[in-house]
Amino acid sequence: MTRFAFTIEASDGAARTGRITMQRGEIRTPAFMPVGTAATVKAMYPEAVAATGADIILGNTYHLMLRPGAERVAALGGLHKFMNWPGPILTDSGGYQVMSLAKLRKITEEGVAFQSHLDGEKHLLSPESSMEIQRLLDADIVMAFDECTPYPAAQEDARASMELSMRWAMRSRDAFDAGGEHAARAALFGIQQGGIYADLRAESAEKLIDIGFDGYAIGGLAVGEGQAEMLRALEFSVPVLPADAPRYLMGVGKPDDLVEAVLRGIDMFDCVLPTRSGRTGQAFTWDGPLNMKNARHKDDPAPIDAECRCPACASYSRAYIRHLLKAGEIFGAMLMTAHNLTFYQDLMQAMRDAIGAGRLTAFADDFLARYRRR
Amino acid sequence: MTRFAFTIEASDGAARTGRITMQRGEIRTPAFMPVGTAATVKAMYPEAVAATGADIILGNTYHLMLRPGAERVAALGGLHKFMNWPGPILTDSGGYQVMSLAKLRKITEEGVAFQSHLDGEKHLLSPESSMEIQRLLDADIVMAFDECTPYPAAQEDARASMELSMRWAMRSRDAFDAGGEHAARAALFGIQQGGIYADLRAESAEKLIDIGFDGYAIGGLAVGEGQAEMLRALEFSVPVLPADAPRYLMGVGKPDDLVEAVLRGIDMFDCVLPTRSGRTGQAFTWDGPLNMKNARHKDDPAPIDAECRCPACASYSRAYIRHLLKAGEIFGAMLMTAHNLTFYQDLMQAMRDAIGAGRLTAFADDFLARYRRR
Repeated sequence: MTRFAFTIEASDGAARTGRITMQRGEIRTPAFMPVGTAATVKAMYPEAVAATGADIILGNTYHLMLRPGAERVAALGGLHKFMNWPGPILTDSGGYQVMSLAKLRKITEEGVAFQSHLDGEKHLLSPESSMEIQRLLDADIVMAFDECTPYPAAQEDARASMELSMRWAMRSRDAFDAGGEHAARAALFGIQQGGIYADLRAESAEKLIDIGFDGYAIGGLAVGEGQAEMLRALEFSVPVLPADAPRYLMGVGKPDDLVEAVLRGIDMFDCVLPTRSGRTGQAFTWDGPLNMKNARHKDDPAPIDAECRCPACASYSRAYIRHLLKAGEIFGAMLMTAHNLTFYQDLMQAMRDAIGAGRLTAFADDFLARYRRR
Repeated sequence: MTRFAFTIEASDGAARTGRITMQRGEIRTPAFMPVGTAATVKAMYPEAVAATGADIILGNTYHLMLRPGAERVAALGGLHKFMNWPGPILTDSGGYQVMSLAKLRKITEEGVAFQSHLDGEKHLLSPESSMEIQRLLDADIVMAFDECTPYPAAQEDARASMELSMRWAMRSRDAFDAGGEHAARAALFGIQQGGIYADLRAESAEKLIDIGFDGYAIGGLAVGEGQAEMLRALEFSVPVLPADAPRYLMGVGKPDDLVEAVLRGIDMFDCVLPTRSGRTGQAFTWDGPLNMKNARHKDDPAPIDAECRCPACASYSRAYIRHLLKAGEIFGAMLMTAHNLTFYQDLMQAMRDAIGAGRLTAFADDFLARYRRR
């Protein structure tokens, strides 16, 4: 069976559509990966996640290593069996979360020593331990261990951080390749760093290409620089990456971010936004986001979006969903999450179709004008 | 179409099995009604509630009158459309919740004046307003407005409370009957009170029968008296109720309570236990309740119950469910609720089958021995 193949079926400007073929299934690109942090895409049955159109989900190494523990997941048959998701899973390396969540972090050449935000227990995340954890989880796509360069960062700091990540990328490659049977069926992605500096992004890409990866992620964006700056960084970060491998923009983003990034050649995304902001009341629609807790919805018999195929829009009014959210009902989180994940997948499908038809620019213009009108 | 018919298909001692026929569907008895307090059976899609085997659910008048408001629900097409439950719904009268949740209550002959526990706004619940609210919600089974006699209560206090409830029962009957088109398709149940006093229970039953109701509920039990005292009260409370009408034991109960009460002639139940305690980690099984947060489950690949047909037992390990509960994940509440509601419905089906086969006593002996063994 094919371990990993990326087939581009159509291009349109810098954008392309195609599929990644792996042993656990195909991933249509451009792809949005719902986030299943703690072995669950929050408030969703896995079957319902698949029904939205998701081909692959993301799991978080940092969370899973702390609870329930990678060895435990491995003993229980791996993450797919544990959480009942038979399709591909990408796990991040833990590098981002350890910097944003862990306590008493200490970064050395070896890795990141830290204390768990849950119980204060001491841990070390290194290229070797991250690869080991992702192997124990049985991830289909493994991410190299990196340091997410903070924003803002002076160029010399961004360079030092990028160079550390590139040394860690080499060690990740070696550790992954030593993973035996898992390495023979999983894929490894490298992560480009370099902040908002074009020469660092190019240098990082060159080092990653020298090492060789199945796919290339763009790290260190969507960390506070704003959409305009992120898009400017994509202009010089994407073209230096290999054209024949998937390009994954980590942690992005809002619907308009996705469209702008696909236009610039991105193939994969993940973001907590549709799930997290769904739980707190933000519904995404083709006419922009709606705050479903707003009092103007309280007598509205219309669904969130009359044309949406999701279970929330099929059977429930805005008035009902607002009621559930105001009352703090779990079912409100369930319906909002189902809606938002469906919207995200429908947006990805619309972009795949538009690229296939050679009309992505027109689609993007129409989408962005309508989405941003309100 | 039949407004309301109760058909007893088989009897076994005091127990009976049959069906209630109403315009929105049939209710197999003995029946357990999942509680959908705020227009949602918490953490469940309505289709999933139906898939557990529930024929009817309960809505809470007190909660719904305060949020989102009965007029609003009526304007949106009624409770069934609002919450997407097409089958029968029983609404309570608000009498119990106003005593347990509302602030600054004042009981008069007219009714109960109180302030909302949500926003402090002043309201009055009376037989007339309770019937009006339940009509606006479009309940299929409407409960008479009563005072739930506290426990313990001296006999003279229990008498005064019961007599007030009986005067309110008469006013409920009149107000319900004035409900026009709704009265022509809904049913009204009276509620027997009288605490733990046999003569008061008999007198209450007599007054209710004089007024005439479609079904008869036993109120004022499961309020702290304990199972033994409750069962003792059922011995004299049930036989004084009409044999040809459904008997509904309100707010009960644990699985063994259900079995003991069916043995004594009860046809209908409601309780938050399977939903509420599911969310906090208690799983019901034929071998008794399990605390799914317990550390002994953390490496257990077995489902909660290998023979259970629910979605949790079909695809998830005890280890996974414990992980979700410990992590506070919504999906943990979803799986636990689905399991517990399935267990409750399977228990009811097993009792209906046992009554039909004339072997309820043997079933109950076996069930109780196994359930209480651990």
